[in-house]
Amino acid sequence: MKFTDKLLPREKVFRDPVHDYIYVQHQVILDLINTKEMQRLRRVKQLGASSFIFHGAEHSRFTHSLGVYEITRRICDLFLRNYPTKEPGDGLWDDSERLVALCAALLHDIGHGAYSHTFEHIFHTNHEMITQEIITSPKTEVNKVLRKVDPELPKQVAAVINHTYSNPQVVQMISSQCDADRMDYLLRDAYNTGASYGNFDLTRILRVMRPYSGGICFDISGMHAVEDYIISRLQMYMQVYFHPVSRSMEVILSHLLKRAKQLADKMPTNDRSTPYLLMPFFQNNFDIDDYLKLDDGVLNTYFIHWVDSKDSILSDLADRFINRRPLKSVEFNSDTKKLIPKLQKLIKQVGFDPEYYTDTNNSFDLPYDAYDPKKKHHATQIELRRPDGTMVELSKVSRLVNAVTGKQLGDERFFFPKEMLNSVNNIEIFQPIYEEFQKHIKNNQLT
Amino acid sequence: MKFTDKLLPREKVFRDPVHDYIYVQHQVILDLINTKEMQRLRRVKQLGASSFIFHGAEHSRFTHSLGVYEITRRICDLFLRNYPTKEPGDGLWDDSERLVALCAALLHDIGHGAYSHTFEHIFHTNHEMITQEIITSPKTEVNKVLRKVDPELPKQVAAVINHTYSNPQVVQMISSQCDADRMDYLLRDAYNTGASYGNFDLTRILRVMRPYSGGICFDISGMHAVEDYIISRLQMYMQVYFHPVSRSMEVILSHLLKRAKQLADKMPTNDRSTPYLLMPFFQNNFDIDDYLKLDDGVLNTYFIHWVDSKDSILSDLADRFINRRPLKSVEFNSDTKKLIPKLQKLIKQVGFDPEYYTDTNNSFDLPYDAYDPKKKHHATQIELRRPDGTMVELSKVSRLVNAVTGKQLGDERFFFPKEMLNSVNNIEIFQPIYEEFQKHIKNNQLT
Amino acid sequence: MKFTDKLLPREKVFRDPVHDYIYVQHQVILDLINTKEMQRLRRVKQLGASSFIFHGAEHSRFTHSLGVYEITRRICDLFLRNYPTKEPGDGLWDDSERLVALCAALLHDIGHGAYSHTFEHIFHTNHEMITQEIITSPKTEVNKVLRKVDPELPKQVAAVINHTYSNPQVVQMISSQCDADRMDYLLRDAYNTGASYGNFDLTRILRVMRPYSGGICFDISGMHAVEDYIISRLQMYMQVYFHPVSRSMEVILSHLLKRAKQLADKMPTNDRSTPYLLMPFFQNNFDIDDYLKLDDGVLNTYFIHWVDSKDSILSDLADRFINRRPLKSVEFNSDTKKLIPKLQKLIKQVGFDPEYYTDTNNSFDLPYDAYDPKKKHHATQIELRRPDGTMVELSKVSRLVNAVTGKQLGDERFFFPKEMLNSVNNIEIFQPIYEEFQKHIKNNQLT
Amino acid sequence: MKFTDKLLPREKVFRDPVHDYIYVQHQVILDLINTKEMQRLRRVKQLGASSFIFHGAEHSRFTHSLGVYEITRRICDLFLRNYPTKEPGDGLWDDSERLVALCAALLHDIGHGAYSHTFEHIFHTNHEMITQEIITSPKTEVNKVLRKVDPELPKQVAAVINHTYSNPQVVQMISSQCDADRMDYLLRDAYNTGASYGNFDLTRILRVMRPYSGGICFDISGMHAVEDYIISRLQMYMQVYFHPVSRSMEVILSHLLKRAKQLADKMPTNDRSTPYLLMPFFQNNFDIDDYLKLDDGVLNTYFIHWVDSKDSILSDLADRFINRRPLKSVEFNSDTKKLIPKLQKLIKQVGFDPEYYTDTNNSFDLPYDAYDPKKKHHATQIELRRPDGTMVELSKVSRLVNAVTGKQLGDERFFFPKEMLNSVNNIEIFQPIYEEFQKHIKNNQLT
Repeated sequence: MKFTDKLLPREKVFRDPVHDYIYVQHQVILDLINTKEMQRLRRVKQLGASSFIFHGAEHSRFTHSLGVYEITRRICDLFLRNYPTKEPGDGLWDDSERLVALCAALLHDIGHGAYSHTFEHIFHTNHEMITQEIITSPKTEVNKVLRKVDPELPKQVAAVINHTYSNPQVVQMISSQCDADRMDYLLRDAYNTGASYGNFDLTRILRVMRPYSGGICFDISGMHAVEDYIISRLQMYMQVYFHPVSRSMEVILSHLLKRAKQLADKMPTNDRSTPYLLMPFFQNNFDIDDYLKLDDGVLNTYFIHWVDSKDSILSDLADRFINRRPLKSVEFNSDTKKLIPKLQKLIKQVGFDPEYYTDTNNSFDLPYDAYDPKKKHHATQIELRRPDGTMVELSKVSRLVNAVTGKQLGDERFFFPKEMLNSVNNIEIFQPIYEEFQKHIKNNQLT
Repeated sequence: MKFTDKLLPREKVFRDPVHDYIYVQHQVILDLINTKEMQRLRRVKQLGASSFIFHGAEHSRFTHSLGVYEITRRICDLFLRNYPTKEPGDGLWDDSERLVALCAALLHDIGHGAYSHTFEHIFHTNHEMITQEIITSPKTEVNKVLRKVDPELPKQVAAVINHTYSNPQVVQMISSQCDADRMDYLLRDAYNTGASYGNFDLTRILRVMRPYSGGICFDISGMHAVEDYIISRLQMYMQVYFHPVSRSMEVILSHLLKRAKQLADKMPTNDRSTPYLLMPFFQNNFDIDDYLKLDDGVLNTYFIHWVDSKDSILSDLADRFINRRPLKSVEFNSDTKKLIPKLQKLIKQVGFDPEYYTDTNNSFDLPYDAYDPKKKHHATQIELRRPDGTMVELSKVSRLVNAVTGKQLGDERFFFPKEMLNSVNNIEIFQPIYEEFQKHIKNNQLT
Repeated sequence: MKFTDKLLPREKVFRDPVHDYIYVQHQVILDLINTKEMQRLRRVKQLGASSFIFHGAEHSRFTHSLGVYEITRRICDLFLRNYPTKEPGDGLWDDSERLVALCAALLHDIGHGAYSHTFEHIFHTNHEMITQEIITSPKTEVNKVLRKVDPELPKQVAAVINHTYSNPQVVQMISSQCDADRMDYLLRDAYNTGASYGNFDLTRILRVMRPYSGGICFDISGMHAVEDYIISRLQMYMQVYFHPVSRSMEVILSHLLKRAKQLADKMPTNDRSTPYLLMPFFQNNFDIDDYLKLDDGVLNTYFIHWVDSKDSILSDLADRFINRRPLKSVEFNSDTKKLIPKLQKLIKQVGFDPEYYTDTNNSFDLPYDAYDPKKKHHATQIELRRPDGTMVELSKVSRLVNAVTGKQLGDERFFFPKEMLNSVNNIEIFQPIYEEFQKHIKNNQLT
Repeated sequence: MKFTDKLLPREKVFRDPVHDYIYVQHQVILDLINTKEMQRLRRVKQLGASSFIFHGAEHSRFTHSLGVYEITRRICDLFLRNYPTKEPGDGLWDDSERLVALCAALLHDIGHGAYSHTFEHIFHTNHEMITQEIITSPKTEVNKVLRKVDPELPKQVAAVINHTYSNPQVVQMISSQCDADRMDYLLRDAYNTGASYGNFDLTRILRVMRPYSGGICFDISGMHAVEDYIISRLQMYMQVYFHPVSRSMEVILSHLLKRAKQLADKMPTNDRSTPYLLMPFFQNNFDIDDYLKLDDGVLNTYFIHWVDSKDSILSDLADRFINRRPLKSVEFNSDTKKLIPKLQKLIKQVGFDPEYYTDTNNSFDLPYDAYDPKKKHHATQIELRRPDGTMVELSKVSRLVNAVTGKQLGDERFFFPKEMLNSVNNIEIFQPIYEEFQKHIKNNQLT
């Protein structure tokens, strides 16, 4: 398999706001970009409900996928220039792995659907499984393009996604605690939200990255750059990804889909409001073709119809989602958790069904993890390479990283209608209920 | 009408990648942002088909509207600080106009629909008229919010959009050859495409802007900054907005909608592929509620259905649009225009209906215009103010601007299926036709 | 004292790469900028020897001083807009303090000399004392400008520098753990070095800053922005300010000045190499006029002369400094420290005087400190304000800050001629000495 | 001559704010950077007196030289990747030219002195001649480093500087109307001044650049990018390089040096104010060693001494330069030029010697030039390459460039003491003279 034979007559570029240019040098990459499965990602937002809060965050999974591809391409270039393998097993970079790496990078998110995480939760789909299916199913354009290069290529690319590929360098490029995926989404989300916290020094990290027999490590001289990346990622989680208002919009979305699913049997099957493309999912009888027809716009189109539904809960939740009317929320902890039933009761008294109008949601992230023999599953820890070739794990030398290693950071919140907090414009008769409710909230926390 | 009474208890901000923060100080602005008509703009891309070429250009008209509001707010602040009116008729800034200006800025694009320019062309809608209707119709949330401040406010805001408002400073802030609208879209489109050409020095332009009795002028000391803005705008037209591939996608879209409209009578009215929300437009019998239900995602949803249509032209054009399969194009001029019928004939011979698979499209822009007594309609020319208070028109002192003043820049192109250019993978029997076709194309031009 | 009477007829701006524009609104600020004492700062680099490593870091203390002024001006504007005092003692912002704050911000570094820290060490000057003297001495232009506004102004401004000024808000704006000085130098040094680590979200920090009776605090909603600033500062110390090569150039400079001072008695007093402007310092008999004649260029001019000195140590050290020939260094700790005498002996054996060719240097910084009753002196801790008005200290809520609170971070290094590490181009007879020396160095550390 | 043998064991980088990193791959480049002649450029500001107006513009010719090297390196990389020569005379890129190109790029400014243009004017030196002398004289470190690679290398590098080198591609990389030198200084000066006008799309220009038998041309697809670069350069000239206040500071400097030269015979030769390092220039008897001892700091040191001179003109001019007290200026044209003697007479009446306190200065630049058979000397015109390989000159296809081709843009100004404009703080008895003077000035122009 000599991939270099498949180079484009002349390298092609895509203008990119984050990486300046995306460079495409192989025919197969260009062909993959042009498949309908890849093009669908243009219609799926990278950050879902976050754009309701950070209005600039309207970028799609398509642009992110190009970015992950480009970072992977640069890593391959650097590895080829500085650490080319000389003999099998020397732990250096074998550039015949390049095309598998590039394809896996480009395709790593191809199974993502509209509002992925919420959708999966309600319909029990799994975007990672679907990604592998799109790559290996003979029905897809992606699969055809890959097979034209080599009949084994789809299986290899899927193995990278699945972490079972034989070369750990390729796997860790795409998926590890400091990989092309995370590096692109941090930079891109920071660029588009305008929240500068996600910025870190990509060029410097690429300079200190190097292959070794166990995968990918980093020169110890670049310790602070890696540390800065870990902290930046943590900041993005705390300030952007876990923003209470976007979680509130996801709560509404989740309840909206749940309600629709519940009503599905009774929905007219031949009506302007029939969600034809969702029916296979309501009926739990869908295939990959059904899945690939969904995108953000399709779901939103149904929600627009549902605003006019006769079911008042479906209609109201659709309105809240489409027209951005978020729930409010407060933090709680294991102590104050026990207050929630009481609050739900008060909420019910003023007329909201707690099943659809309240929820709890915890958002926690593990900013970094080192190997712990007591755990079953664990992330690939970040190894730093000393001048003499020995390795040391990141949290051993970084006081900052050490402080967050193995720690779940985030919070747990209780969501409820904002009407509970307003003293004006509300129904007077419920005033004592509102007041009772508000007594339990102080400094944005349950008390 | 004392708008300052309606200030928010504490100023609210929206994080913005272009302006850092959008500052909201009035309750009415916050309420307008929260109307469903404004929220709809989140689902309408600012640049339509351009994102098929500049993949980062996925931003919506919502974010642009916030940006126009913010630039207008800054202009008002500067005018109030440096040029507050002392007596009526002194040509200085009367800050009681602020709220009209801010509302008009925020709402100036509210009537834009999905893929506006193409849609208007096929369905004879007009986004400027609709903008005014949304503002003045008592049915909309926008209107209700405005009326709460003052019953006259809707009419005043609509008058600004319509260029009939009494204060020319307010009109020119929002709409002139150097206004908040153009300044925001240049910066934002440049930011998101990654094409740096659109950048210019906003802070410097704001510093040299000043009110006068005729509207808005610029200190002559800032001539080069204004000149640079005019050139940047020209560059964005030439390099981004008039890109041949995005025009090609618009050609496809236009033909797709035309075909659907033609088939509308025969379309099943009660079927999974029925475009319910488009029907009022096919039947030329729509109201503002129908219009406000449309967005990019709704149209795309119908296109996704139509890919499976039995009408092979509808199906193929839908596939070309949804899955980004553009036509090719070449430039022509008045001499070579006469070749087009011959080329269309060749195209027909290989099996493409020229009505749906070829088109001509000219894209010309007037980068800048000065007053010309011979013309009926003309733009507000840009006036520069000398230290002694006299004015001079921009193109009189800028050699660069002079070179493009009153000149239409752009090109005229002929669009056709890319199959005509490929020598491989095509049907062998048609080879002589392809060769005949290709003889007329050299250096991307008809010859 | 009504400072607003002294506003400029029209606000003046200075273009600034970091803050876009510096806005000057008061005559006194413009006059201060035009004093010769301020203009001298143009000839003193902000980062001294760091530009030998980060070649872009060529900016002066003049540009930094403008930046600190500008940040302070923005803080005053925000405080006036959002937290104006209503009655004495309410802990809100009294805008009659503005001019004292602005002058102190602009002048806070006016006593800095050429290569300040090294110079102070050798000549026992103190830039903070000199700053106060320049402000209060009737001989300076700065003092005259201040007195024109109010005879008490010099004393007040000096009190801010000295931390004895009555209003703690003014003092903490200029000097605290999150002040205008630190914020400007981090952003400016990051901008000019190209090391992005120093970037943090200035606009957001300014938004959450607020006055209170104890000085300045921060809304708890901005905790992560303050945390990010603390981490950015730490990163700049670790990666830029403590860079081993710039410390090595400072070691050379220090030894060069020490040697010159030692030779001063014997230097010809009437010769082309006589350092006339340094003589008062060699003789420990200088006044403020002598001090204000020095700048980076004056010292360098003497060093250029000294390269031709007959004293071989003076000549060689001058050459090493002027022509950037740094020493090498390795890290050591309390254990390996005891090896240093042995290494110095080896260095002496190959012909270098250890007094001038070796040194130890420790660089440690306290990234953040909270109040500790056991310590005598302590920094103003960073207080976060909860919605109900209560305060919490930063390290109590930030796991990251907590990890570095009260910890000295940095390292201790031993500096020596790089000839000790080269195996080639060295004198063969010394080979065993070099080898003995090199045995003690592994992974850039003494062992 | 196989330069690739001299690669560094591992590529070295310098952090750069404009290009992110400068990559050094050859030992000879690293050695050249470490010569004392290159290190001297750290002490010479790139923009001389411009930093008096744009305070951020404090960068040196050293950082610019690294930047020119880096752009040249990238061009070589692109040419090698895309257009490698296959046989002699095919007009493609011969990578054995790389090292000559890189050395010439790095060294192209090495002969620049302190305040070069003014200095040259007074002392009749020529920085281009001196550059060649530094490269070819066996006395310099630069020459030694070059000779170690190949005895012919110094001559070759000097030939590139001198435009006589046989390969026009190498010459045009370093010196043409769109070369690495201009591209770096525009970007770097824009970055440091904060004036964004100088920005253009470097990556895009590099992508469309290609070698041909006549030197370097550009793909016609990149026409707008080249056009934008030409306009950006024009903007920088108009807004930064020709700023009236920096020209005023140069007028003062020129008069100061002229006065000092005039007084040189009478200057004490053995005194604290003796400008030892300038004496060879006053006596018109200097060699390259004398020249290489000068830098900005050395000249400033003498100026600091001269402030205390007994010659009142020398003292006053030195004070005006060191402490930034610029002259005022007005524009004049061929008509109003005849007023100048009258104004000088008025200036003399209030006590200023017109020879030292007035001057005229014209600053004109040719933004772009095409070949004109009528002219003797002409710049290499910019050629655009059509897909079929034919060329077209830039101004033929760009309306904007055409508008400025062959046109000298700029202005001519008359400089005088600002005392002539002040009505207050001046000596009352001269009031009629000031008024007479001011009558001739309107809108910053002579009338």
